[in-house]
Amino acid sequence: MQLSSAPEIGVGVIGYAFMGKAHTNALKTLSYMIYPPPARPRLAAIAGRTEAAVQEAAARYGYASAYTDWRDLIADPTVDLVDNGGPNDIHAEASIAAAEAHKHVLCEKPLARDAAEARTMLAAVNRAGVIHMVAFNYRFVPAIRHMRDLIAGGALGTIYHFRARYLQDWLSSPAAAHSWRLSQATAGSGALGDLGSHVVDLARFLVGEPTAVSATLKTFTTQRPGGTVDVDDAFAASVEFASGAIGTLEASRVATGNKNGLIIEVNGSNGSLRFNLQRLNELAVCSGSDGYTDVLMTDPARHPWMKHWWPSGHIIGWEHTFVHEFAHLFDAIANGTSVAPDGATFEDGYRAAVICDAIATAARDHAQVSVVY
Amino acid sequence: MQLSSAPEIGVGVIGYAFMGKAHTNALKTLSYMIYPPPARPRLAAIAGRTEAAVQEAAARYGYASAYTDWRDLIADPTVDLVDNGGPNDIHAEASIAAAEAHKHVLCEKPLARDAAEARTMLAAVNRAGVIHMVAFNYRFVPAIRHMRDLIAGGALGTIYHFRARYLQDWLSSPAAAHSWRLSQATAGSGALGDLGSHVVDLARFLVGEPTAVSATLKTFTTQRPGGTVDVDDAFAASVEFASGAIGTLEASRVATGNKNGLIIEVNGSNGSLRFNLQRLNELAVCSGSDGYTDVLMTDPARHPWMKHWWPSGHIIGWEHTFVHEFAHLFDAIANGTSVAPDGATFEDGYRAAVICDAIATAARDHAQVSVVY
Amino acid sequence: MQLSSAPEIGVGVIGYAFMGKAHTNALKTLSYMIYPPPARPRLAAIAGRTEAAVQEAAARYGYASAYTDWRDLIADPTVDLVDNGGPNDIHAEASIAAAEAHKHVLCEKPLARDAAEARTMLAAVNRAGVIHMVAFNYRFVPAIRHMRDLIAGGALGTIYHFRARYLQDWLSSPAAAHSWRLSQATAGSGALGDLGSHVVDLARFLVGEPTAVSATLKTFTTQRPGGTVDVDDAFAASVEFASGAIGTLEASRVATGNKNGLIIEVNGSNGSLRFNLQRLNELAVCSGSDGYTDVLMTDPARHPWMKHWWPSGHIIGWEHTFVHEFAHLFDAIANGTSVAPDGATFEDGYRAAVICDAIATAARDHAQVSVVY
Amino acid sequence: MQLSSAPEIGVGVIGYAFMGKAHTNALKTLSYMIYPPPARPRLAAIAGRTEAAVQEAAARYGYASAYTDWRDLIADPTVDLVDNGGPNDIHAEASIAAAEAHKHVLCEKPLARDAAEARTMLAAVNRAGVIHMVAFNYRFVPAIRHMRDLIAGGALGTIYHFRARYLQDWLSSPAAAHSWRLSQATAGSGALGDLGSHVVDLARFLVGEPTAVSATLKTFTTQRPGGTVDVDDAFAASVEFASGAIGTLEASRVATGNKNGLIIEVNGSNGSLRFNLQRLNELAVCSGSDGYTDVLMTDPARHPWMKHWWPSGHIIGWEHTFVHEFAHLFDAIANGTSVAPDGATFEDGYRAAVICDAIATAARDHAQVSVVY
Repeated sequence: MQLSSAPEIGVGVIGYAFMGKAHTNALKTLSYMIYPPPARPRLAAIAGRTEAAVQEAAARYGYASAYTDWRDLIADPTVDLVDNGGPNDIHAEASIAAAEAHKHVLCEKPLARDAAEARTMLAAVNRAGVIHMVAFNYRFVPAIRHMRDLIAGGALGTIYHFRARYLQDWLSSPAAAHSWRLSQATAGSGALGDLGSHVVDLARFLVGEPTAVSATLKTFTTQRPGGTVDVDDAFAASVEFASGAIGTLEASRVATGNKNGLIIEVNGSNGSLRFNLQRLNELAVCSGSDGYTDVLMTDPARHPWMKHWWPSGHIIGWEHTFVHEFAHLFDAIANGTSVAPDGATFEDGYRAAVICDAIATAARDHAQVSVVY
Repeated sequence: MQLSSAPEIGVGVIGYAFMGKAHTNALKTLSYMIYPPPARPRLAAIAGRTEAAVQEAAARYGYASAYTDWRDLIADPTVDLVDNGGPNDIHAEASIAAAEAHKHVLCEKPLARDAAEARTMLAAVNRAGVIHMVAFNYRFVPAIRHMRDLIAGGALGTIYHFRARYLQDWLSSPAAAHSWRLSQATAGSGALGDLGSHVVDLARFLVGEPTAVSATLKTFTTQRPGGTVDVDDAFAASVEFASGAIGTLEASRVATGNKNGLIIEVNGSNGSLRFNLQRLNELAVCSGSDGYTDVLMTDPARHPWMKHWWPSGHIIGWEHTFVHEFAHLFDAIANGTSVAPDGATFEDGYRAAVICDAIATAARDHAQVSVVY
Repeated sequence: MQLSSAPEIGVGVIGYAFMGKAHTNALKTLSYMIYPPPARPRLAAIAGRTEAAVQEAAARYGYASAYTDWRDLIADPTVDLVDNGGPNDIHAEASIAAAEAHKHVLCEKPLARDAAEARTMLAAVNRAGVIHMVAFNYRFVPAIRHMRDLIAGGALGTIYHFRARYLQDWLSSPAAAHSWRLSQATAGSGALGDLGSHVVDLARFLVGEPTAVSATLKTFTTQRPGGTVDVDDAFAASVEFASGAIGTLEASRVATGNKNGLIIEVNGSNGSLRFNLQRLNELAVCSGSDGYTDVLMTDPARHPWMKHWWPSGHIIGWEHTFVHEFAHLFDAIANGTSVAPDGATFEDGYRAAVICDAIATAARDHAQVSVVY
Repeated sequence: MQLSSAPEIGVGVIGYAFMGKAHTNALKTLSYMIYPPPARPRLAAIAGRTEAAVQEAAARYGYASAYTDWRDLIADPTVDLVDNGGPNDIHAEASIAAAEAHKHVLCEKPLARDAAEARTMLAAVNRAGVIHMVAFNYRFVPAIRHMRDLIAGGALGTIYHFRARYLQDWLSSPAAAHSWRLSQATAGSGALGDLGSHVVDLARFLVGEPTAVSATLKTFTTQRPGGTVDVDDAFAASVEFASGAIGTLEASRVATGNKNGLIIEVNGSNGSLRFNLQRLNELAVCSGSDGYTDVLMTDPARHPWMKHWWPSGHIIGWEHTFVHEFAHLFDAIANGTSVAPDGATFEDGYRAAVICDAIATAARDHAQVSVVY
């Protein structure tokens, strides 16, 4: 049996809400859907602040242990991989503690509240020599991987433009409530870190390093039920790349009518690409002068993992990005290799933080800021 | 713990290929994603013709037993529900045997190779008093359920038109190989039963009973590598409904460029709806004269099960329809009720078979045929 | 000067409303936009029943003469071409009279109220030896001409499916008023002749002769403000073609949300095409397995007349189809040739009427009807 | 007759190529399509550098006189309105000369090669007291006018974002030839003035004055067949508005796959709008949480001029914007009023030039630049 020969990896997950659920689903799905799996996940432990809730989550998902203090989860000897899905303000402390305990670390994005914090995390995982990954899961959308393959393979020729915006609208109404995501102390920044970090990571993943940014940052509603907002609602930036390409980067939580619209456009001398996360199974490909072709990405020929799913034409969901992400991470752990370049390392997470900081600085200083890592 | 109070249902699955994988994934996902679940699935047994393959499937998915004869699966006392996902030519025999063994039965579509066969299956489950369901899983697409709610609630006014076509293209090339689906003996019919049964079931689900059909049936390529094709590649029909609506029904395996395009349009005196399975998270809603609104169905307010998934804007995949389907079936089994009207019973499967037969007869006789159950 | 060498054609237009305006605009635009023009139109005369209105139309558009009786227009020696844009019930009488007066004839669609009437018109123009054309202007949409070129050139391989529906919604409300178009005596039929004749002509134009039809015809609202409706609101048909292709044909005046949606889909063994009149500058082209490419038809390379308009990317309007149509007709008149095969002759108009009659007969008799010219 | 009571305006057009043809077509269409017209155009004179070509244009279009020197056209006493459609480097000289000759002036965009030049033109028309207009014709697209009406009427609530990009691709290939548009001396700037001036004017028209811009400007190919390129191929900018809104502005001649894609998105607290010039008959309107509705703009209720065209559903072409523009200008001339606020005056043209200059300065100085008129 191939199954039994795959190594087993004990996973400890910090957080049982949105990301805890999405990651757990991926872990449970991985072992029979990506088959044979590169490694088999063992649901070792889950941690969360509320005793009753974390106990219920453990029972619901089948975690062996439940902790109310993430330090106990890291100390648990059955945990090989710490999956850090808590709020941004525990990303650094828990990830560093995990690395120091010689656990592999997967950390949700943004890696940290700012670049300085991210740098300490990167140093910690490098020191410890553990496998590290930032959950920039959109690198694992088949269409986005295919975009990178097309661009890297030269199908688009010289890249002229990169244009990306991550648009949501849950704060469009001034009556929408405050939460930890709207506080600088816990979140670091607003749309910039939360959504903009994805945009920035995908810019790097697809067309390479940006060299300079100019930007505007805005908080449209500063008082909301439950508290004062001291992070941005949205930003808009123009960007220059090392390759010579120019473009725009945007993120917003107030772009009414867009629930989860991560829209990316790339124009090159020989072709163009267009993607929208709300239709993540599709990629619009223009190969010359004839307009865009709507390519369905469910064909196994498009993406290394699509063969694990369904016959062509049967679309996959948003959460499948995490299945691909974990498969990639498990493969790296099983082989003792980095998740780069397909996956995002803490180095990638740090670089995304540097660019986000540069955007904030450019907005504050009304001047273009160079990106220096 | 709510989890422990849910009854446990032992499931025996016949078939380990496409549908076996899709059903198993749904069973494994159900218990933690639809939470608390109406009942907890126990993966009791799996059956398939090839010993090595069925053993591997059992290990991969975690089934307690593996059988090469589905009769053994039915006889297994740990099996409460027989999930009949084999080829069409064992739908009747295995489903009837399951009913006679007082097991609940879920049967893949089409229920049978023709209406006469379907009628014997309906009689068997009625005699046995077991819960029965046909896997018309598209009733469990959130957008399609929402369509029915809008139509039934009168939002569209009087229904004038129903137009549905299920378009695939895996047989567009005359060089595509033969398989059991292209043989009348095993499949009953071609695109008509395979894809047309979905179209016909959704017509009934959405706008009620058809009363008469006229049709054309066609096999474009009769000799393929591996054998002679004696079933249809495609059909086209015009249809009249008891409500007074008229429309067209189509299915094709040679509609080049359509991988899995189930497209439905409904026009009423006050509004219209448009749906495409390749974008199953969206529904185009026209409420008057202002064109179609592209409504994203990920909002929990749209569908009773969407609250179990992700925040609005995060799309679900094709396979989630089966999770909803099993949740509905388990709820029916736990409560001893029929799956009707939201789910499809064997009565619905029989009626779909009657209509498919009427389409074939109309095509053969070059005359309109009345639908008589 | 090239201009002066082009022959001059005196045009007499019957009707000053919708079609009179559209045709006149085309005549006025033709001579400087399609340059040098194949012939120069002279606005000789216009006819209409209301004295004041026809006088105003003549002044507005610059017609030399105005008549309240179309017989006077035909008798006018300055009229070389009679453009018959009156209601359907004068199509035959006026067109035959024009032919007998040895005038060339352009007649609006449908050519006649039924095939028998159309046959007398065809006989008349053949007897007289004049140039004759039916205003099936959609043959002159660049995208539709391009479709025909692709199909005829074999780009799609064997044609499997033809699917066309002409959907409008001006009668969706039962409160919409009666008019001459809703009376069999004046119009012949309803959606069938008005919209269905376009569908049927394009079917022939694109994929060749249909051999048999089955159909359903329906009048949803029989009493409207202003009178009783004795023509159909909509029809739905399945169709077989001499080439072996099968498909559906539909037209409706009650397809809510569709203002002028003429939607055509063609599937062949090697590719597919999709068109919607509401986006008449675009054609979706699928050339194999990669989905549909949205091709903008404004590129002069797509269509023989696009070089006369604007740089690529600047879309043209619905009325430009008439400019192309008149340019084609004028070229035929100047050269003494038939408008076939690119334009529709009275033979084409007659054949469309035969097919429309077959659809009505099939619906009445609940049986498939063969198309026999 | 209403026609005879309308005043007559003698029009002299400078330039017979692309814009000359588009403007002439509008003048010829205006008097019978926008009926009764606010004034009747008389085609008084046309000017161009090549004797034979300008003579042919005069004959083709019906201009009474033809001149090879635009100064003669301005001096022609039959010319009441000078329509300045020559290259950018004669915009100032000819417009100022026209004003000084007390002729009304319509000038193509961009008004001038830079803001300083534009300011002299504005001073000249103000001094002369003539009616003046810049041909920002997209203000006369029904969808764009409807956008302004919706925004100004408060339908979108507080405006958060404005995002516009004008994308063409005629320079995507480095082999595309040089022309006067690629030379700073004749054109002033590249994509910035040519396409960006439209973007900037529509930003002001739709959501009000911008206050600051940051930007990047780029020439991707500096040597082309026929000469050196010393203007930009593209720019990308972030922008802040007096209203508090933020957004991005872009234009490119190298955005492969976009022929004439002017794409505008506006997000407000209560709704959003989306427009693409390649589908200029449509407007996507989001009025809350339910996604975008695709509204066809052919309904006369949407726009003051649509009643002059065709029944709803019959789309108009790009050139119709000029018909609306001239109708508006003629109305202003006939009534002695300014074309503001619906049309663009030289003041609007000057302001657009100031903003374009600010974008260029921001790019050069790597710093945000305030917009000061």
